[in-house]
Amino acid sequence: MKALILVAHGSRLAKSNTEVFKLVGELEKKCSGQYSIIKTAFLELSEPLIPEGIKDCVEKGARSIIILPYFLNSGRHVTDDIPNIVNNVRKQYPDVDIKITPHLGASDLIIDLLISSADATQLK
Amino acid sequence: MKALILVAHGSRLAKSNTEVFKLVGELEKKCSGQYSIIKTAFLELSEPLIPEGIKDCVEKGARSIIILPYFLNSGRHVTDDIPNIVNNVRKQYPDVDIKITPHLGASDLIIDLLISSADATQLK
Repeated sequence: MKALILVAHGSRLAKSNTEVFKLVGELEKKCSGQYSIIKTAFLELSEPLIPEGIKDCVEKGARSIIILPYFLNSGRHVTDDIPNIVNNVRKQYPDVDIKITPHLGASDLIIDLLISSADATQLK
Repeated sequence: MKALILVAHGSRLAKSNTEVFKLVGELEKKCSGQYSIIKTAFLELSEPLIPEGIKDCVEKGARSIIILPYFLNSGRHVTDDIPNIVNNVRKQYPDVDIKITPHLGASDLIIDLLISSADATQLK
């Protein structure tokens, strides 16, 4: 069973966290055929935190988990904090394959997204 | 003449700012036919700041400027800080049309980007 966890930074503003939960809801609609569990987790400031998110997926039967950092740049959170947390949790579940995707700014599609956003605004 | 300014937060880490400049370089390759000027600017911590970026575009002849906030969530930076800075600068250039795009998390394409990123990592 495969799981996908979108990991956002987490905010003191409830509105910002709600945006992330909504986004994951949209993600769930689009790829629930591919991933049995699709969850939100936060690096800090909001719950569930990453270890709790992973634990929940494992308890529900996930044996493959993709961690998707919802970050644009490869700052310290992406290069150190998230991998360190995931590495610690990984030790508790040696039978579970846990992978972390690159930050979003590294995707080829980010350019298309930027152009599409600029074009839509220009035409307004 | 049209200009596009990608506005990132700005970081104390040079590497993070360099990533943004590189991304804007890629953006330039893809849409220089559509925008005569494509620039990077930062909200804080790195230069050029937004007013300087806009000034540079206007001096080079831009009469239409799209500000593209490189932010995933609609936090305070997106809802208040960037619009406030742009509104202040706008007063100096009444003949220039300056528009701000929504944050990237609001784009329909963000879901495709997330799925593509997850899929690529899963196959590794």
